[in-house]
Amino acid sequence: MSGTAPERGCGHNSQFYLMNEYIETNIGRFTDELFELLRIPSVSADTTKAADVHAAAAFVAEKLKAAGAENVEICQTAGYPIVYGDKITDSSKPTVLVYGHYDVQPPDPLELWTSPPFEPQIRLVPGSGDSAIYARGACDDKGQMYMHIKALETMLHTGGELPCNLKFMIEGEEEVGSSNLDTFVSENAEKLKADVVLISDTSILNNENPSITVGLRGLAYMFVEVTGPNRDLHSGTYGGAVPNPINVLAKIIAGLHDENGRVTVPGFYDRVEELSAEDRAAMARAPFSEDEMKKSLGLRDVRGEKGYTTLERKSIRPTLDVNGIWGGWTGEGAKTVIPSKANAKISMRLVPYQQWEEIADTFKKHFTELAGPSVFVDVTWHHGGNAAVTPTDTAAYKAAEAAFEEAWGKNPIPMREGGSIPIVALFERALGIKSVLMGFGLDSDSIHSPNEHFRTYNFEMGIKTIPLFYKHFARLSAEG
Amino acid sequence: MSGTAPERGCGHNSQFYLMNEYIETNIGRFTDELFELLRIPSVSADTTKAADVHAAAAFVAEKLKAAGAENVEICQTAGYPIVYGDKITDSSKPTVLVYGHYDVQPPDPLELWTSPPFEPQIRLVPGSGDSAIYARGACDDKGQMYMHIKALETMLHTGGELPCNLKFMIEGEEEVGSSNLDTFVSENAEKLKADVVLISDTSILNNENPSITVGLRGLAYMFVEVTGPNRDLHSGTYGGAVPNPINVLAKIIAGLHDENGRVTVPGFYDRVEELSAEDRAAMARAPFSEDEMKKSLGLRDVRGEKGYTTLERKSIRPTLDVNGIWGGWTGEGAKTVIPSKANAKISMRLVPYQQWEEIADTFKKHFTELAGPSVFVDVTWHHGGNAAVTPTDTAAYKAAEAAFEEAWGKNPIPMREGGSIPIVALFERALGIKSVLMGFGLDSDSIHSPNEHFRTYNFEMGIKTIPLFYKHFARLSAEG
Repeated sequence: MSGTAPERGCGHNSQFYLMNEYIETNIGRFTDELFELLRIPSVSADTTKAADVHAAAAFVAEKLKAAGAENVEICQTAGYPIVYGDKITDSSKPTVLVYGHYDVQPPDPLELWTSPPFEPQIRLVPGSGDSAIYARGACDDKGQMYMHIKALETMLHTGGELPCNLKFMIEGEEEVGSSNLDTFVSENAEKLKADVVLISDTSILNNENPSITVGLRGLAYMFVEVTGPNRDLHSGTYGGAVPNPINVLAKIIAGLHDENGRVTVPGFYDRVEELSAEDRAAMARAPFSEDEMKKSLGLRDVRGEKGYTTLERKSIRPTLDVNGIWGGWTGEGAKTVIPSKANAKISMRLVPYQQWEEIADTFKKHFTELAGPSVFVDVTWHHGGNAAVTPTDTAAYKAAEAAFEEAWGKNPIPMREGGSIPIVALFERALGIKSVLMGFGLDSDSIHSPNEHFRTYNFEMGIKTIPLFYKHFARLSAEG
Repeated sequence: MSGTAPERGCGHNSQFYLMNEYIETNIGRFTDELFELLRIPSVSADTTKAADVHAAAAFVAEKLKAAGAENVEICQTAGYPIVYGDKITDSSKPTVLVYGHYDVQPPDPLELWTSPPFEPQIRLVPGSGDSAIYARGACDDKGQMYMHIKALETMLHTGGELPCNLKFMIEGEEEVGSSNLDTFVSENAEKLKADVVLISDTSILNNENPSITVGLRGLAYMFVEVTGPNRDLHSGTYGGAVPNPINVLAKIIAGLHDENGRVTVPGFYDRVEELSAEDRAAMARAPFSEDEMKKSLGLRDVRGEKGYTTLERKSIRPTLDVNGIWGGWTGEGAKTVIPSKANAKISMRLVPYQQWEEIADTFKKHFTELAGPSVFVDVTWHHGGNAAVTPTDTAAYKAAEAAFEEAWGKNPIPMREGGSIPIVALFERALGIKSVLMGFGLDSDSIHSPNEHFRTYNFEMGIKTIPLFYKHFARLSAEG
């Protein structure tokens, strides 16, 4: 994939050309500004980085204002602040609420990064002719969120009237479960009132086949701790006679899946909707190659729930994965210890109709039962959210479709994605507003991994596509 | 347990009184010297502590010389040096080779220590009236090894003639598998020639019931690594479709024991000798309380191989324990990652006739089979040693028995212990010399754990008991 924007873009009116010209002229500065933001290690999961998370909020507020947003405000919450700004030009126009986040995942393991995670760098993506911005947050979500600020600047600097009223809400706790967003949204329902939420925090299938995410899995993220003896013991003196919490934890984890790769938490699949044969057949026609995935990830083989394809396993099926485990001696060399405790972080991806709080409760009971009588267990949930499916028959979805068609020259494919953005369910519940997930990343961007990157082509194309969404949304809303 | 030495000691000759007086007069200085050694963080498993490990060797050499040893030498090996010294007075006397080690286990987890591990402190043992030296290595093995140096000083300063020729061999790699000892011993067979090896690196049952260790389990210590994808992945995008190395590792570990708590490595029990009903009955009469162990370790319940008692499980039965595990996100908060790799350190305690190299090989094959076709595995052994049983019908064992009787006023109980001291098997194989395991620690000394300690009473009694061993060994050897 080495095309450049102009080859693919196919604008239809003079403002489109003006905007494209503005973007192409200023893309170097846009990138420099994004680099500034990427240099701030705003890791919300790491309390030692609190000052950096706040600095990222301040940066976003400043750039929103500079782009032409009004009423810009850093709204305090019980956690990290939410940056708000708007540009209301005409109450008869539809209103779009743009959501994004300025916090990022922890960068560990650091040693696997080719360049330091908070020193952004543009270089070629190995095995492709594409250049990309390498940094933690390049794609998720600083890069994608910043496209919206630059799209606003572009629209206001190319003289056209904004087709919609715009509101921006950029939060700083997405990577740790958005735990203060619910309260903020409920308390600011009037201020946040909009016709649709526009989110760029997902990916497209690939640059030849743009896609729009229409389903997101939910999540229940659990912390577990197993305690055997009250202190670390010498395995020579006590080995074989006391419960080793690591062995017990391993046995519990093994018991969380059955021989068919199905999750054993009781009732886990009760609310899961089985897709029809037609829907599954439609899904199977998506341009997805399991062989290419295996090759790209260096997998010896795929592995998952029996009876489902890889594409189904990673999108429409609920799953359970251990995200972290630790216990005993993990340093250099050997230590013959039976540790007092073993810990794990376990998360379940949920699909529509599963209730994460119900699942978290049942998980706790099930885990405790699997542990047996010889150990103490402590199971808590860290955060969660239900799955969401976004409708495809709305003006907003059709506007996103039209924007992709106009900018990319291709009709985007509706896709279910495996990740979770709890705000989608939250907005629907708290404000009754649907979301449209117009992401521009690629699955291969290594978000949440070392060497996260965002292709420069996608950054530029995102900024070009967003204004077209507003244009088509205004048109389709008026028609509707 | 708050008795003091003189109440229990019951000497029978004037040199015994002279020595006891010397020890009681100088015990403060002896302790200060031990403190100096304990302040050196000679953690052999931690390469950043190399200079400290060497400093500990130098300290031992200096103190051996000061105590009156001759030919003191810091012998270089491919790893950490072995300190040698001797005091040969008469070639017609029997020769005892004293073995000990100056390296210590890593102190982690640091936050569980009441006082810093390398800042020794004397304080009361909670729940007892006994005072103890708290520091990493206080018991294992700096404290116990140093008793031998002070016993030599005592004998030479109280005018008596040494009843035996003495050789000292103090190594610095015991806690990492003594991997260079074999070569050293083979290359110095003549120099190390002796009638018995005397080792104080084990424990007694309790201070009311002194005991002598007559069996030690062997060890095979394995490192394992499971690799799924070639990089960390986002669990939302890929969860459910790719092999998660943590889940796979947990399943493998769970599969290493069957439902009866038996190790599933093929052939694992083939060479294991079943004890006779009489031997098991004799063992059951040992003053051991499972309830007290449960209470002291805060255990919810015991756990182990079906059909065996707790005492049997921790001494005469082979076992498998995970000593460390790590993978994925282990930091603060949540990270929805499917890691590329998961790792564990797994060790097996072996009993007489099991061959550790054979077991390590079979383990590797078995682990790889359990892993299945979806992941890559890497299994290596870190170190190992076969189990050893020491005879009770020798002059050396009888001398140890007599020394305990004379100093402690009690006939010591012969006990099998769970730990491993590979040198016992090594010496028998390489030099044809038996060992006698005259340890003075307690199982509750928290060796290899936070708050390791060594009771001041046991330190003093050890120094008093050792010279009596030499006396009785000379007598019994002459008689034999």
